[in-house]
Amino acid sequence: MNLLLLQPGELGSDGTVTLTDRRLAHARDVLKVAEGDTVTIGVKHGLMGTARVVARSKEALTLHCTLTQAPPPRPGIDLLLAIPRPKALKRIIPVIATLGLDRVVLLNAARVEKSYFDAQVLNAAVIDGLIDLGLEQARDTLPPTIEVRDRFKPFIEDELATWCPQAALRLVPHPTATELARAMPTTSRLVIAIGPDGGWVPFEVDLLTQHGFTPIAMGARVLRGETALPAIIAALRPGLAFHQR
Amino acid sequence: MNLLLLQPGELGSDGTVTLTDRRLAHARDVLKVAEGDTVTIGVKHGLMGTARVVARSKEALTLHCTLTQAPPPRPGIDLLLAIPRPKALKRIIPVIATLGLDRVVLLNAARVEKSYFDAQVLNAAVIDGLIDLGLEQARDTLPPTIEVRDRFKPFIEDELATWCPQAALRLVPHPTATELARAMPTTSRLVIAIGPDGGWVPFEVDLLTQHGFTPIAMGARVLRGETALPAIIAALRPGLAFHQR
Repeated sequence: MNLLLLQPGELGSDGTVTLTDRRLAHARDVLKVAEGDTVTIGVKHGLMGTARVVARSKEALTLHCTLTQAPPPRPGIDLLLAIPRPKALKRIIPVIATLGLDRVVLLNAARVEKSYFDAQVLNAAVIDGLIDLGLEQARDTLPPTIEVRDRFKPFIEDELATWCPQAALRLVPHPTATELARAMPTTSRLVIAIGPDGGWVPFEVDLLTQHGFTPIAMGARVLRGETALPAIIAALRPGLAFHQR
Repeated sequence: MNLLLLQPGELGSDGTVTLTDRRLAHARDVLKVAEGDTVTIGVKHGLMGTARVVARSKEALTLHCTLTQAPPPRPGIDLLLAIPRPKALKRIIPVIATLGLDRVVLLNAARVEKSYFDAQVLNAAVIDGLIDLGLEQARDTLPPTIEVRDRFKPFIEDELATWCPQAALRLVPHPTATELARAMPTTSRLVIAIGPDGGWVPFEVDLLTQHGFTPIAMGARVLRGETALPAIIAALRPGLAFHQR
């Protein structure tokens, strides 16, 4: 936790907030804060800054916040992600938030098991909690939006055109691609379509390429989702920032 | 597990091997192999190929192996890594192996806690097991070498020159660097020095730069070790391969 993340509305009009939950536990047991110390703080969807410890007991931490700092630059990337198995999804959502992706669609695919849709991790509240962990890690306050779509073909054929800005470069990592992932011009936003374990099936790759996705390669190694994602993002956007926004 | 990894010497001279451990459990319960099926296999430090299931019971799996394939290209990167806390080290060692790094020194630093040296994860057998998990994931057979050094200054001043090939580009990710990480010429091997939580202290950055390390930046986001490592490697080596070797 490199930033204490407040929910919108938690901060009083006098700039103070009192914490009693896991953020208290972290400040008390890991940061070991005392009265007068300052910590890094941010409001979800809002500004970041510093907070001075006004009062600290075993049960509550009262902070006075000064919020003046914009959240960090973002890579300017949206993601279509074939739904991974629940344990893998739980690991990758914080990484999605840490990397500063903007919009994510968790998408069905031929190699996505039906049971994944019933996973508890797909509940909105669980997703929100995992996003918060990623923002606290990155020192960011802007969460990605994460939506679920249970039909691949209708999403690509009917919804993608409005979901995805026309000017965005569309890329699909694929093992047989001839072009290697490389730094992309920062004049365009990117949309990346990452397949499930075992990859997109040929029908899916064909439909994606018909809808403007260029296959790119990431080498011969098979990476876990939460390793592949930062590798692909950083290959396309060294520095993880998109300077156009 | 995308490859069943055999230890050197496990394979009989007739090309068969009988497995009774976690590899049996994986083949039986996850891959659900039957007699006559083939699986991907490799010998640690050696070749990869396919194995045909000759016999399968609940207690044992006998395979006949045909090994003809070289392991995948490697990025040509060595790593100096300030020792992370044990839980983080346990997560990052498989990632080091998956990415195909060659030589790793786990190094002491001002912000490394003394207690980390007593961690069980630093035992050679534990490290070997974690490396195997990473190789099985990547579909690779060549493990990194991982050594531990408990003194930063003597390592940099006395040992680095012989440890590190003269022609290697030396890079130290550092938040205040002015140059952004970018794809490096594949004419040179790379050595990367990754600091602890909180970063290298100024004395350490100074000593590294005096010894030829160029500071590079990876953006404003604070990444966990196992997220930062694939991001840095892929920013420097898109495709994760070094074609000179």
